[in-house]
Amino acid sequence: MPATDARITAVDTYDIRFPTSRALDGSDAMNPDPDYSAAYVVLRTDGGEPEGHGFAFTIGRGNDVQVAAVRALRDHVVGRSVAALCADPGTLYRDLTGDSQLRWLGPEKGVMHMAIGAVVNAVWDLAARRAGKPLWRLLADADPEWLTAQIDFRYLTDALTPDEALDLLRRGRKGAAERTGHLLAYGYPAYTTSPGWLGYDDDKLARLAARAVADGFTQIKLKVGADLDDDIRRCRVARATVGPDIRLAADANQRWDVPEAIRWTGALAEFGLYWIEEPTSPDDVLGHAAVRRAVAPVKVATGEHAHNRVLFKQLLQAGAVDIVQIDAARVAGVNENLAILLLAAKFGVPVCPHAGGVGLCELVQHLAMFDYVALSGTTEDRVIEYVDHLHDHFTDPVVIRAGHYTAPTAPGFSAALRPASVARYTYPGGTFWAADAERTEGRTA
Amino acid sequence: MPATDARITAVDTYDIRFPTSRALDGSDAMNPDPDYSAAYVVLRTDGGEPEGHGFAFTIGRGNDVQVAAVRALRDHVVGRSVAALCADPGTLYRDLTGDSQLRWLGPEKGVMHMAIGAVVNAVWDLAARRAGKPLWRLLADADPEWLTAQIDFRYLTDALTPDEALDLLRRGRKGAAERTGHLLAYGYPAYTTSPGWLGYDDDKLARLAARAVADGFTQIKLKVGADLDDDIRRCRVARATVGPDIRLAADANQRWDVPEAIRWTGALAEFGLYWIEEPTSPDDVLGHAAVRRAVAPVKVATGEHAHNRVLFKQLLQAGAVDIVQIDAARVAGVNENLAILLLAAKFGVPVCPHAGGVGLCELVQHLAMFDYVALSGTTEDRVIEYVDHLHDHFTDPVVIRAGHYTAPTAPGFSAALRPASVARYTYPGGTFWAADAERTEGRTA
Repeated sequence: MPATDARITAVDTYDIRFPTSRALDGSDAMNPDPDYSAAYVVLRTDGGEPEGHGFAFTIGRGNDVQVAAVRALRDHVVGRSVAALCADPGTLYRDLTGDSQLRWLGPEKGVMHMAIGAVVNAVWDLAARRAGKPLWRLLADADPEWLTAQIDFRYLTDALTPDEALDLLRRGRKGAAERTGHLLAYGYPAYTTSPGWLGYDDDKLARLAARAVADGFTQIKLKVGADLDDDIRRCRVARATVGPDIRLAADANQRWDVPEAIRWTGALAEFGLYWIEEPTSPDDVLGHAAVRRAVAPVKVATGEHAHNRVLFKQLLQAGAVDIVQIDAARVAGVNENLAILLLAAKFGVPVCPHAGGVGLCELVQHLAMFDYVALSGTTEDRVIEYVDHLHDHFTDPVVIRAGHYTAPTAPGFSAALRPASVARYTYPGGTFWAADAERTEGRTA
Repeated sequence: MPATDARITAVDTYDIRFPTSRALDGSDAMNPDPDYSAAYVVLRTDGGEPEGHGFAFTIGRGNDVQVAAVRALRDHVVGRSVAALCADPGTLYRDLTGDSQLRWLGPEKGVMHMAIGAVVNAVWDLAARRAGKPLWRLLADADPEWLTAQIDFRYLTDALTPDEALDLLRRGRKGAAERTGHLLAYGYPAYTTSPGWLGYDDDKLARLAARAVADGFTQIKLKVGADLDDDIRRCRVARATVGPDIRLAADANQRWDVPEAIRWTGALAEFGLYWIEEPTSPDDVLGHAAVRRAVAPVKVATGEHAHNRVLFKQLLQAGAVDIVQIDAARVAGVNENLAILLLAAKFGVPVCPHAGGVGLCELVQHLAMFDYVALSGTTEDRVIEYVDHLHDHFTDPVVIRAGHYTAPTAPGFSAALRPASVARYTYPGGTFWAADAERTEGRTA
């Protein structure tokens, strides 16, 4: 029995970097050579309480800045009562986003906001471990009034009021038990980006696309936007490989201006594109709205770089998106993602989460599953992105079966890295990077 | 004569913090206790070249994170040729914003983007010192084609093309010599926020408002948004003090949701408000547009927290603002601000820069003066904010005369702090903060 006066005793941070750039895994038109990284945070506790794990995802350089931002939040967290934190994570979320001096560094965007997300998510991991439930289940079981109180409605009330949110959550509960059973039996539909990285040649693309179909995926995604002729050829290869019934999405990773996005998407439409993702700047609400009007029936998807709930609100108000792509580690954690899920539900737009990177699949599955069980109530036209990288480094990795995410059953937010991986990939002192530096010195000597 | 092969030898960073919270200078509804701070950067050179100075402005906690972000840019800068950098600062600007791994931390927003702004502005300071001109003059004298090439038009071409920019700059040159003469003789109009801090009582407000009028200012600004009754009383005091002919602006510092902004502004309109500033989230383009439609003829002003050119583009496209408030240290430096000035010129919206903080007056005057001399060609309905704090810490402080900024004549971007101030206010090791820590220990011991 944990002590009721248990406290957070430390906020430990780790600069974790995986050398993914060496195999061009994760390569796209904007990010040719990412080293998938995490500013990893562990909330230490006393009194026999579990730990809480969270992270911000980055792609290499600058992960140290992200770690420094997490460290800047320490004084808000150390010494807090574990019981109080878990009873109301929203209090810490508000204290962190409301620190007026730190707020200046955003506000509510960029490095500082992602740091808040890492810490807030670690609290939810702790809360779910403490409750003995996977996070999706903790959220789905929670009282709608309590969930509503977890949300900061500032800047939202012209689109979503607390009363509307409460109403959506109450209605979402109807049939939740049945959907929980369905989720545990069949999982949540996934699509895969693994075939489509820009650095892969056509043979590898075709091989991986065929495997994706054989594995039960009904949607795949290709990276586009570097060279139009290449994209036409790669889309043709993909469509020829998967046949007419598999959904084919394309991801431009913000490469285009608005007129270019319209032209380029038009040139790829003949391959039956399902959606075009991040056609232009993630900040450009009006731009996405213009692209959407021009490229229909191709759908417009964005959100992995949308920095906060205010941007999602506008994307929905402006009719700029067909698909809302939440990311578990870009905004200020579960609390802000609850607001975004509710906005999407209010506007009737499906949520298809962004994942991949380091542990984004592990985290975001919980949010999509909560959305299915206790908010939107459906998986129609909803899929979670899946990329088969780096899962082995987590203690509770995602399990994909027949193109579906299997519902996690272990307590927590699936956010904990294996200690051996931390020891190996901590930058620059971990065993991998230390040996790498030695090799490099050997070559240059 | 400097050596032609001179290089950047070091990027030195300093965490500078001023204890402004102790007098409630700078207090507003969102920022009750700012400690005005700067992540200060000095580009060291060899070969007898001058140094380059720049900074990001923060309000205390987290300034260390901002410094870490500047440090993360070092490898892009050290070793560069001084002559090449100054001949084309745009190359470095593109290299910094285009570093795909660092870009993930924004993109183009928050801590990482402000760090780029600090470094890019330091390069412009160096370029202007090297040219023996104040920055406003270097820009006003520059070839329009060269200026156009300094801009990254990515994400802008649906609103502003390079050809349109070039045309605006060429037209802006007509009459520049005459306007330069006028500027040197009379300066650039200012307004003052010094009377209106939220932490000041009514007597201090009235006293400072009267002094502002006596000093020649034709516009003052009050902080509002914490308590409506207080705001009504303070607006009444201010209007009674300054009379009917002085423009009275109000600044809500992002405190309101859209419906609240409309109601609150309506309640203050009877005092003849000229503009309402930052009525809601700085990210909320559609929200500002809705507020503007509702509160006219009160004008809507925003921009000091607008994180990049894409947001300014949308504010203008959506008809969301009457006044564009650029900030010299929030976006990625002079290059991105050139784009924003051109967008404002294209849409015919006046620019009234945000200033105050640490050194923001010193920097932004150069941009407004360039705009007057060689772009918009007018100061009608244009004023630069002025706050009389912390100027003495700069080697080339602003000079205000009869409610006008005097045009700087010293070479550079007016960005250099006095060495004595750096030594005293570096955190936590500077003499002020070390003594402060000792005092605190003395009290608690």
